[in-house]
Amino acid sequence: MIAAGRSATPSDDGLALFTDFYELSMLQAYFEEGLYEAAVFSLFVRRLPQRRNYLLACGLDTVLEQLEGLRFEPSDLDYLAGLDRFSERFLRWLEAFRFTGTVRAMPEGTPVFANEPILEVTAPLPEAQLIETLVMNQIHLQTVQASKAARLVATADGRPVVDFGARRMHGLDAALKGARAFHIAGVASTSNVLAGKQYGVPVSGTMAHSYIQAHHDEAEAFGAFARLYPETVLLVDTYDTLEGVRRVIELSGELGDDFRVHAVRLDSGDLGELARQARRMLDEAGLQQVGIFASGGLDEHRIAELLAHGAPIDAFGVGTSMGIAPDAPDLDIAYKLAEYAGEGRLKLSSGKPILPGAKQIYRRREGNRFAGDTIGRQDESQPGEPLLQPVMRDGQRLPGHSRDLDTLREYARAQLEQLPPGIRAIEPAETPYPVAISPALQAHQDAVTRTIQARYAASGRTSETGDGDHSND
Amino acid sequence: MIAAGRSATPSDDGLALFTDFYELSMLQAYFEEGLYEAAVFSLFVRRLPQRRNYLLACGLDTVLEQLEGLRFEPSDLDYLAGLDRFSERFLRWLEAFRFTGTVRAMPEGTPVFANEPILEVTAPLPEAQLIETLVMNQIHLQTVQASKAARLVATADGRPVVDFGARRMHGLDAALKGARAFHIAGVASTSNVLAGKQYGVPVSGTMAHSYIQAHHDEAEAFGAFARLYPETVLLVDTYDTLEGVRRVIELSGELGDDFRVHAVRLDSGDLGELARQARRMLDEAGLQQVGIFASGGLDEHRIAELLAHGAPIDAFGVGTSMGIAPDAPDLDIAYKLAEYAGEGRLKLSSGKPILPGAKQIYRRREGNRFAGDTIGRQDESQPGEPLLQPVMRDGQRLPGHSRDLDTLREYARAQLEQLPPGIRAIEPAETPYPVAISPALQAHQDAVTRTIQARYAASGRTSETGDGDHSND
Repeated sequence: MIAAGRSATPSDDGLALFTDFYELSMLQAYFEEGLYEAAVFSLFVRRLPQRRNYLLACGLDTVLEQLEGLRFEPSDLDYLAGLDRFSERFLRWLEAFRFTGTVRAMPEGTPVFANEPILEVTAPLPEAQLIETLVMNQIHLQTVQASKAARLVATADGRPVVDFGARRMHGLDAALKGARAFHIAGVASTSNVLAGKQYGVPVSGTMAHSYIQAHHDEAEAFGAFARLYPETVLLVDTYDTLEGVRRVIELSGELGDDFRVHAVRLDSGDLGELARQARRMLDEAGLQQVGIFASGGLDEHRIAELLAHGAPIDAFGVGTSMGIAPDAPDLDIAYKLAEYAGEGRLKLSSGKPILPGAKQIYRRREGNRFAGDTIGRQDESQPGEPLLQPVMRDGQRLPGHSRDLDTLREYARAQLEQLPPGIRAIEPAETPYPVAISPALQAHQDAVTRTIQARYAASGRTSETGDGDHSND
Repeated sequence: MIAAGRSATPSDDGLALFTDFYELSMLQAYFEEGLYEAAVFSLFVRRLPQRRNYLLACGLDTVLEQLEGLRFEPSDLDYLAGLDRFSERFLRWLEAFRFTGTVRAMPEGTPVFANEPILEVTAPLPEAQLIETLVMNQIHLQTVQASKAARLVATADGRPVVDFGARRMHGLDAALKGARAFHIAGVASTSNVLAGKQYGVPVSGTMAHSYIQAHHDEAEAFGAFARLYPETVLLVDTYDTLEGVRRVIELSGELGDDFRVHAVRLDSGDLGELARQARRMLDEAGLQQVGIFASGGLDEHRIAELLAHGAPIDAFGVGTSMGIAPDAPDLDIAYKLAEYAGEGRLKLSSGKPILPGAKQIYRRREGNRFAGDTIGRQDESQPGEPLLQPVMRDGQRLPGHSRDLDTLREYARAQLEQLPPGIRAIEPAETPYPVAISPALQAHQDAVTRTIQARYAASGRTSETGDGDHSND
């Protein structure tokens, strides 16, 4: 057991309690009422954020691993017992709790659009209910992160993008999962060493201003670092960026054939203009092989602007903008009951429709491009490739879906290449990607709606009071 | 040991590797060069976000606990050895690594402004360097969260605000630490059960639409839930909000004296209008004691608008807007070397000044209000209360600073009350809170700047090339 201060979260608790309190309240009610039949829940994003033409689904493998291991530990049950809300019988039932359901999902690295299920869970109602908070939190996080990173990678157009976000991302888990999601989306490496250890993401880094500041002078700091790490990147903006570049050139004279510095890093000022001047100075000194690495407040729009103006930058370090995604830090993600005991379910509350039943997404291609999707019923057939595949059955991951990060990254790359150019662009698309509802699914939604409306009206025994006609659509 | 899928992060790794790769590269360089003397690092926010008049410092106790336990585990050292970058001697040194430094900090729940150190670390250079990423990440997270929550609590003006954010916050750590930070900032309770267990934050919750949907009809669901949890909150908007309210009223007739439902929850539609109509219906039915709980896309501006229009809402559930703080999800936080080996340090790069040396913040009062701050040198005396207090010495937490969440919450409440009303308001302040630099600190900064400039010019042996005059200010 790892003491609280030493582990990557405040304790080594399991994840069964990472749930909203109402889930456990409902679970006890289901337990008391005997509502154990099969439920289908769909996880989907209701609307794309204004600044996203598509999302990149991510986080599935993380969730499946969490579901396989979901257990209530004795200390969890002690805590719940102390809340004076749950019966001893129910706590004994929780003690034996395992997730035994089926999950169908699109592979990580698949572009996804509004209302398309990223995954669907079929399980006894209490099991499918309990996992709501965890599944939403984890898929939301990595999907936000991968979707943002894909924009940066596309904009850098082949130049490496490096994740510098750990210091300002929202906590330890965000920084660790982020490094994973970014790598799947095409980011070259991360500065986050623990993410390197946990996920095998390549780690990289340069030097900080504090290293320069701690030395008596900058040239001494450059020399010491380059002798220890010959193929390093030297940070040149601590005192004066171009004077820093000149000192790197001087160092190349001192070291001669031992000079193997890979790049200089610019971290402040007018990066485009400084990159041009630094490039000219390095070239004039015969140091064409020394690259220019830029960082400091970069996002995809700033990178696009730098490259459009021909800034000779070879790689980008991106921190906060990729790590937090401030232009779209949250998604209108939902995990909704779509079927229970074989009957389609939905709600009628305003602006938040649910597509009932188990579904499938069919994606059509024209040549090498995705041409449009149809969301249909699971058991129907539509033109195009079905995106949701079984990945877990009876609570066990199925073989066949990849968990290897390099394989997922290559899959994502190939998927992103197939997006229409206007959808992959960082500016809002003039025409959104076409997503249709199949006639059979539409008919099912209409039928379920009619059934529920009729049953609702019939159950309103005193609806003649007149309050029933205030629909909040 | 907890298997990966069961713990609240992907593994039970310690936190020593939660650091940027360049920190370890610099550490090995410091080790090789013998740079072990005392360094002072300051953690501060360079600028307040546009939509914040103040920040609420938070996360200190979390960080101190992490620093006390910081160790490189055998598996960490194995991973580092495999990177082919670090010498065996250096890895042996890491094996014995402990944080032995001193930390001075403002108490959690203290309002803080631009350039004011939230904490200062004094430690041998490598120790103070290694912890940069972790300390920044953790203080940044909880300060973002507490600062946002304080705005919601102030706006709700005594009505309870409940944290519903777990499902969309950025990962597990953000959701757990958020519940802690929110509670310090005055939030009443959280839906996050694991946060309740780990931090003792009160947990609460109502019911989800899925519970209603899973039942044959709404009235049946209300009845079952209210019989199991008599003092519950019933969610009324699954099908038709006011018809839902009517069914709650019917239930009160059925249950008679056993009807003890605490509130109805509105989660969609025009919350202000629905609250007014629901209030009227409940009052006409003699159910004055049944409150109205509102949720669904709320933030401080929406709450202010609802209350300004007299919406009879008794409590608010807030999720994404508090959890992610989309209007200010990141801070321009920095952790900068301010002194090494007894000499003030800074950098000259554009737009990012550093105040050299160990510092103190003096906060003046006029009556019961904070009237202005002066950032001075640690060893000088200025009018006002000094905010930075020793909280850790020789790597051990000092007794005396509170770790109790209720005490921190009460301290924060009293602190927030002392802010000038225009600063505490959610709209941008016309006049920012006054923060001055003391003459002694200004003189020190000038002197250190001159020393560094002179040394820098002298060390630029061939500065007559003319490239040295391109200042990137």
